[in-house]
Amino acid sequence: MSEYDPLTASKRLNILLKHLNNEENTNNNSKEWRTLSSSQCLTVCTNRDRKWNGYGYKDTFFKFDERGTAFSTGNRYPNFSSKEFHELRPWLEQTLRINLKTICPAQPNIIELASPNVNHEFYDAIKPQGIMISFAEQDRLSHGHGISTAEIYRLRHGNFARIPDAVIWPESHEQVVTIVKAALKFNVGCIPYGSGSNDVDALECPKENVKRMIVSLDMRQMNRILSLSKENMYVIVEAGTIAQNLEKELRKRGFTLGWDAEMLEFCTVGGIVSLRSNDIKRNMIGDLEHSVINFKMVTPTGTININKSQISSGPNFQLLFGTEGTLGVITELTLKIHFFASQRHYVSIYFPSFHNGLLFLREIAQKKIIRFSGARLVDEPGLQLVNAFNTTTPTVSSIFYEVIKKYYLKKIKKLEVGKMCLAAILIDGDDIIKLKAYEKKIGEIGKQYGGVIAGNDLGERVFFVSKRLPYLRDFLLDHYAISDRLDATASWTNVEMLVENVKEKITNTCKVQNIRPRPYIGVRIDHIYDTGASITFTYGFNCRNLGDPLGILRLIEQVALDEILQSNGSVSHNTSGIGKRKKESFRESLDEPVVNVLKNIKKTLDPTNIFCNQNLI
Amino acid sequence: MSEYDPLTASKRLNILLKHLNNEENTNNNSKEWRTLSSSQCLTVCTNRDRKWNGYGYKDTFFKFDERGTAFSTGNRYPNFSSKEFHELRPWLEQTLRINLKTICPAQPNIIELASPNVNHEFYDAIKPQGIMISFAEQDRLSHGHGISTAEIYRLRHGNFARIPDAVIWPESHEQVVTIVKAALKFNVGCIPYGSGSNDVDALECPKENVKRMIVSLDMRQMNRILSLSKENMYVIVEAGTIAQNLEKELRKRGFTLGWDAEMLEFCTVGGIVSLRSNDIKRNMIGDLEHSVINFKMVTPTGTININKSQISSGPNFQLLFGTEGTLGVITELTLKIHFFASQRHYVSIYFPSFHNGLLFLREIAQKKIIRFSGARLVDEPGLQLVNAFNTTTPTVSSIFYEVIKKYYLKKIKKLEVGKMCLAAILIDGDDIIKLKAYEKKIGEIGKQYGGVIAGNDLGERVFFVSKRLPYLRDFLLDHYAISDRLDATASWTNVEMLVENVKEKITNTCKVQNIRPRPYIGVRIDHIYDTGASITFTYGFNCRNLGDPLGILRLIEQVALDEILQSNGSVSHNTSGIGKRKKESFRESLDEPVVNVLKNIKKTLDPTNIFCNQNLI
Repeated sequence: MSEYDPLTASKRLNILLKHLNNEENTNNNSKEWRTLSSSQCLTVCTNRDRKWNGYGYKDTFFKFDERGTAFSTGNRYPNFSSKEFHELRPWLEQTLRINLKTICPAQPNIIELASPNVNHEFYDAIKPQGIMISFAEQDRLSHGHGISTAEIYRLRHGNFARIPDAVIWPESHEQVVTIVKAALKFNVGCIPYGSGSNDVDALECPKENVKRMIVSLDMRQMNRILSLSKENMYVIVEAGTIAQNLEKELRKRGFTLGWDAEMLEFCTVGGIVSLRSNDIKRNMIGDLEHSVINFKMVTPTGTININKSQISSGPNFQLLFGTEGTLGVITELTLKIHFFASQRHYVSIYFPSFHNGLLFLREIAQKKIIRFSGARLVDEPGLQLVNAFNTTTPTVSSIFYEVIKKYYLKKIKKLEVGKMCLAAILIDGDDIIKLKAYEKKIGEIGKQYGGVIAGNDLGERVFFVSKRLPYLRDFLLDHYAISDRLDATASWTNVEMLVENVKEKITNTCKVQNIRPRPYIGVRIDHIYDTGASITFTYGFNCRNLGDPLGILRLIEQVALDEILQSNGSVSHNTSGIGKRKKESFRESLDEPVVNVLKNIKKTLDPTNIFCNQNLI
Repeated sequence: MSEYDPLTASKRLNILLKHLNNEENTNNNSKEWRTLSSSQCLTVCTNRDRKWNGYGYKDTFFKFDERGTAFSTGNRYPNFSSKEFHELRPWLEQTLRINLKTICPAQPNIIELASPNVNHEFYDAIKPQGIMISFAEQDRLSHGHGISTAEIYRLRHGNFARIPDAVIWPESHEQVVTIVKAALKFNVGCIPYGSGSNDVDALECPKENVKRMIVSLDMRQMNRILSLSKENMYVIVEAGTIAQNLEKELRKRGFTLGWDAEMLEFCTVGGIVSLRSNDIKRNMIGDLEHSVINFKMVTPTGTININKSQISSGPNFQLLFGTEGTLGVITELTLKIHFFASQRHYVSIYFPSFHNGLLFLREIAQKKIIRFSGARLVDEPGLQLVNAFNTTTPTVSSIFYEVIKKYYLKKIKKLEVGKMCLAAILIDGDDIIKLKAYEKKIGEIGKQYGGVIAGNDLGERVFFVSKRLPYLRDFLLDHYAISDRLDATASWTNVEMLVENVKEKITNTCKVQNIRPRPYIGVRIDHIYDTGASITFTYGFNCRNLGDPLGILRLIEQVALDEILQSNGSVSHNTSGIGKRKKESFRESLDEPVVNVLKNIKKTLDPTNIFCNQNLI
């Protein structure tokens, strides 16, 4: 019989955590970052500066002021925090019939949770190693979900069937090995945790086997840069390193990961590789797989070192990327680095139709006349959303937008309503003259398709807005509007068809469900390749009078995912992954032998299902 | 009881084959190529225009003429066929002490072979489908080996323990499915065959289970271009299409695979993907995997369609690339295409040391100031080999080489003997002005490391020579010299160390084996990346007085492979793959869980070992 009492331990650890974290009084997240020189773990990196029932930092959210103008709080983000958005309220009122005075209140206090299952033998096996563990409710809850709309909605209005029984913060590869060995010996489930920023319900706990203890492995204490080789252009890091923090350190030294690091504010490098996230500048640096030189993964049957410098023939073991924590925990990564370009220019161009915008992007992607590191295209509803993020008044770009609209109407006569779009191209480099030449070339190519150059600011905002959308999503929830996003990939010849089909399916489903007014659907092209493009659908609707908004959201999602597959698209592209949200659709796109291969790899590496998150298949 | 008589069938099929192929009287291999318009299979593509006991075409080989000058026969290759090589004999006499009058004769007639095992039920299952099959000795033998030195040596002086019992030429995906189903039902082994151009003994038949019929699946009748999409920049081809032929057709239309297609004279696209060949212009287009959009593979448990446009998250199924025909047959590939550049320039630069040449290449690879599509570096022995391929007289580049050598000796004084090297860079594009600017820039970077610009012809020859080396290898065998090659990859900081270590190990092993004179070892850098480079070692020695040249060759190879791993290199990089030759070293570089994963994938997809070639693990 063990002398251990979980509640006492929980309390003790809570005190320790509070002591170690002073995060209640600080907005500074730099403590999540250990430098090269400090090899000692000094801070416990928790989620306590983040909202318990919403996206992002506690201090950052949208509000209406007393005059009814939308503004954002906090001071974390330049061009966003503590700014007024004059066009946001009118746009919301018009598209979603949001009433600023009608608030949909979230449940005020943290959800009542069942007490944790504690496997005492497991606890006793890891305790002597000095491994940090917490049984605190707020830690358990924050590690039991990601940031999907469904999850946030349930935090605001419902509960979770199951959350992890404890959170563990390993500090080294060896500690991970100890934990996984103990989990195997004493039959404890493990769910690797990066930053909880997925939106595919990847962190949901399994429903069955309710008496088995489940621990969340929060990897963020493993955030050391182990070495940086300028000669071989790589950096070796622990897998819990936050991508954005790593990027900052690299830039200080003149390097970059080449990833779109601003998109990866919370994400750990291990999480990105686990999800095989494609939200990187693939046009510049190739697939994510191309970025990863070596990696180390702890599985229940042993540690796997994939050392690409020793394996360059035979099967491609990058299969293990994108397995979403179902086979093991990545503890270490060797990542390729690139020279950081000092200059970045954003070019934006209006087009009279989405079709023309696509032809323009296709030429940019295929002809390779200019070297670009990012490309976007927003349709007219998408553009209105971008304009709603204007922080200037009077809003120059809105006026310009109206002028352009009139120009098109006059010039090409048959401009269809709602068909205008805006492309934005990001070019970077060290040579300003070259960038200027590229900018000119982009304008010339655009002109062939009826393009009219717009401002650089507007181009930048197109890239910027998508990063802050989750804050807006939560703001909508405050006012009885629910929204979500889905991404897809399609061949160039399929993009338009897929977009039209998916929009039609969403619209029809909303109609059948008596949703009024008709839903907002914005379309954005996020990445472009020789062969095709990735598409993000952002959609939302007023849910004031709906009995089961979440049920309807799920229904729309399923209809849209089915249509994406039907239209020969992929059901995921960007940061999202498969998780449990897209599991059915993912499986549908696989042949039976491949499903069997995946199942047998799982059986081989993790025969007793230690890694129990049930993602993927 | 079947009425079928294998010998009669064999004879009948031989007659049919002879009728269909008039290859005894023609040097034209264009019949191996079916155009877009002809959907009917018109020719049987065999190996009958290739040597039965040597590399390449029957009409192409080296010889000494009556004056003792080396020359090459045939008319297939520009700058090579029917040319005199004035420096070849002196160089061979000096480095390998070859005597042009001492001939090492190969056995004159085709090896005596055991009669084939015929599984009558299998034959009866595929016969009604009109599937072409041959039991002819020359077909069976030619499909039972690749082009490794060991295999060619055994063809010249020995025999094979086992060869396929029959050769089948499927003409469609459906026929492959029929064959694999019949093989599964009646327990017949299948070995997929592309073109037999591997040098890793990948086609060797298994020793055990001697009564089981083994059929070779020659895929080259499946060589249709199924579709070409200019909008989406891809081509869909049957997997048996010869890469070089596909490239020719693409170029006619303004496109290219972006692969180094001249290196792939005999290779099928399916074979290249099966071996995960990296002998492509990765600097330009990324990994081979990046080139393959979709593929179709027939396995004993069903057909796998990997449609990347439908799968962009989750695990990376490119694991199935590089499985070397151990799991199934690839029948169809969707390959990315690129715009073909009309201009190509070769730049070559001498450096006073291999070290400096490496620093130069590293800068070219990492700084990305110029866009290049190929890079080579040959050390001094490698350069002598290049010069031995001179077809001009007096040989200008040899004279220049001596001049440069003197210049270095005078200028930097301490030029070490045998340390000079030559780099060659291939740049291509449509804009001559840009290429000229790149050429200038390359010269400037080279100058920083003591580089002196040499001729464009010399640069071109550096690329060219490696393509014709197998013909030279056979010429050496005619004169009691045996040679081989090995490739490796290493990080930039490891390249020099690895090169020195491997050279030392080969030299020492030869010394212990009493080999006189000391062996020739030439080192070539073939591909350069941000993180490192690939290295090819070409080595050879006089074997006139050795009892077991093949045994010594194997010994040297094992010592070299061990040293490559020891020096943190990979044991393979280019076209070669793993096969059976590098199996042990490959396995050594894998962790146990990964070996288990591979074994279980094999069990899942091919539980009864239909694909019995035993490559990889």
